[in-house]
Amino acid sequence: MLNFKIEATHQKARRGLLSTAHGFVQTPTFMPVGTVGTVKAMTPESVKATGAEIILGNTYHLMLRPTAERVASFGGLHRFMNWNGPILTDSGGFQVMSLSALRKITEDGVTFHSHIDGSKHFLSPERSMEIQYLLDSNITMAFDECVKYPAEYKVVQKSMERSMRWEKRSKEAFIDREGYGLFGIVQGGMFEDLRKTSIKALTDIGFDGYAIGGLAVGEGQEIMFQVLDYTACNLPDDKPRYLMGVGRPSDIVGAVYRGVDMFDCVMPSRSGRTGQAFTSHGVLNMRNACHIDSHIPIDAECTCPACQNYTRGYIHHLFRAGEILGSILLTTHNIHFYENLMKQIRTAISENRYTAFHDAFMEKYKNDRKM
Amino acid sequence: MLNFKIEATHQKARRGLLSTAHGFVQTPTFMPVGTVGTVKAMTPESVKATGAEIILGNTYHLMLRPTAERVASFGGLHRFMNWNGPILTDSGGFQVMSLSALRKITEDGVTFHSHIDGSKHFLSPERSMEIQYLLDSNITMAFDECVKYPAEYKVVQKSMERSMRWEKRSKEAFIDREGYGLFGIVQGGMFEDLRKTSIKALTDIGFDGYAIGGLAVGEGQEIMFQVLDYTACNLPDDKPRYLMGVGRPSDIVGAVYRGVDMFDCVMPSRSGRTGQAFTSHGVLNMRNACHIDSHIPIDAECTCPACQNYTRGYIHHLFRAGEILGSILLTTHNIHFYENLMKQIRTAISENRYTAFHDAFMEKYKNDRKM
Repeated sequence: MLNFKIEATHQKARRGLLSTAHGFVQTPTFMPVGTVGTVKAMTPESVKATGAEIILGNTYHLMLRPTAERVASFGGLHRFMNWNGPILTDSGGFQVMSLSALRKITEDGVTFHSHIDGSKHFLSPERSMEIQYLLDSNITMAFDECVKYPAEYKVVQKSMERSMRWEKRSKEAFIDREGYGLFGIVQGGMFEDLRKTSIKALTDIGFDGYAIGGLAVGEGQEIMFQVLDYTACNLPDDKPRYLMGVGRPSDIVGAVYRGVDMFDCVMPSRSGRTGQAFTSHGVLNMRNACHIDSHIPIDAECTCPACQNYTRGYIHHLFRAGEILGSILLTTHNIHFYENLMKQIRTAISENRYTAFHDAFMEKYKNDRKM
Repeated sequence: MLNFKIEATHQKARRGLLSTAHGFVQTPTFMPVGTVGTVKAMTPESVKATGAEIILGNTYHLMLRPTAERVASFGGLHRFMNWNGPILTDSGGFQVMSLSALRKITEDGVTFHSHIDGSKHFLSPERSMEIQYLLDSNITMAFDECVKYPAEYKVVQKSMERSMRWEKRSKEAFIDREGYGLFGIVQGGMFEDLRKTSIKALTDIGFDGYAIGGLAVGEGQEIMFQVLDYTACNLPDDKPRYLMGVGRPSDIVGAVYRGVDMFDCVMPSRSGRTGQAFTSHGVLNMRNACHIDSHIPIDAECTCPACQNYTRGYIHHLFRAGEILGSILLTTHNIHFYENLMKQIRTAISENRYTAFHDAFMEKYKNDRKM
């Protein structure tokens, strides 16, 4: 059971408050990704200092190493990794398709081999619920099947129908507790009728929140927004809506505009480790020689520790020299940039001016997917 | 000009206070190594929090990248890297011998090729002083020549004599300022008469402090202590004594016992990145499978953030998964361990019980060079 309250709306955009056993989450929210029990290159204290209120953990990675049973023996994922705030875990369904080898899918579940050591594992709705329970995840994701994009209607339909059966089994296996919840995942690819069928199936089952899966798979922003146009607003008004694995800043601003409340993406952390900086003036590659003599911060408008204390020239130097501190500072900056964007989004909704915020942002960042 | 005051002694061990333009340093002190403008895997704030009061920068690395002139354009090394405390820089003499390629040594200086891009460079006493001035180093090291160990008497003698000529030129080229100082470096290998000749030459020139070079080159602790026995106590009483590149905890405790005040070593930071933890019970390899289910901290007696917030099992997991946070936490712990050791050493000297501290420590850690 999760409590979710809409506090303000502006057209389709919503501002809300989600309560969990580990604290509150203001929505729209961005969840930094802590794949294997750590947000890469960050301490939990520095993640918190960016303004992040909830992080994401990956069932697939954690079940393989250190294993869910082991995390449970350490008192759950919060205590294992020293993150006291809320945690959402995915179901493992997406990664088992994209990362593991030699998969065999039956109606029962998926048998696969670990990408780490080749060992054999099994994942099903019931096992995914058990793993996420062992991890002590505040938001458990239902176990679904993912298809490659592009895929034919028949393929997407069959997969979506299996996902709905698996999500029903997820609901039956989920152990409900106060401050913990289960989210269903809408599938159906880029087909409007399949998305609607999926929504109907999920709302019949009943979940604490609804995620939109199968996007950000290479379809492009325009198609993604089209799908959101007929998906997000058809989800129950009184439950949080989560767009999985998205995305670029402009993706987020556009999705909030279409009624989405929650996001996660490796973009800010992965970019931070490869030298890409998100700024209020677009994306910078800090490895670029043009920064070598620059005495200004990454982003003069940014209040993060990297921008308060270091120059572009120094951060360029760290990346050129292969120093870990470069990854630390730039990941900090990028996650701070994302969290600050979410704060601006929430404020704009509260102040009933989100459409203007959206239009100005989309104009300024229309090229951010190319950068 | 650097101010140095001996505050307490116990037999040959000394406790003192060194004043620089960027603050005080309590001695005996350990300087974490910030090779190329960062203590690897640490932020300056986290270095400071370990208790470190002074760090070391490497002239050789910094002159190649980002270059001394560029660091100067950023306001010096303190501002470039956001470390507001004192900084000591080495002269580049040691690294130019060990890291660069195609060296040509003449009486004038050393011509060499960069290990990064093969570009040609020149280092001499005058250029080393200029570079360290540009870096704004609080403690400049005189430029000396280093010989490989073992080496014959004649070879060591010739090299030491050239070093003394180069150090005289260093003194002549050094620009003296209040709160900044120049240290001479005693050479002479494992030969007592050469060490004494070197000390005489250096004290005739006159320096703000005296370093002992040419040790920790593979001679072993016993020989190192023998050299210190006839070197350290023959240095001027009223100036700080610095044992370069040393070392293991037991090396430090034994060297303080012989009258040394300052140390630097990559050991705690390098070990931290490879999974070695220094503890009050010896050295642990955190990658070892025996830690996988351990719910206790690295060192129950340690007050560092890694030991306060994380288990051995979690840190083992981070190293197994190749996560940067493993390096961050273990480097933090190891430098904290070293700085805490220095604090214990200083307290034991003040309380006139250093000999007992030394004897107990050497008994407990006699095998730490093997670990």
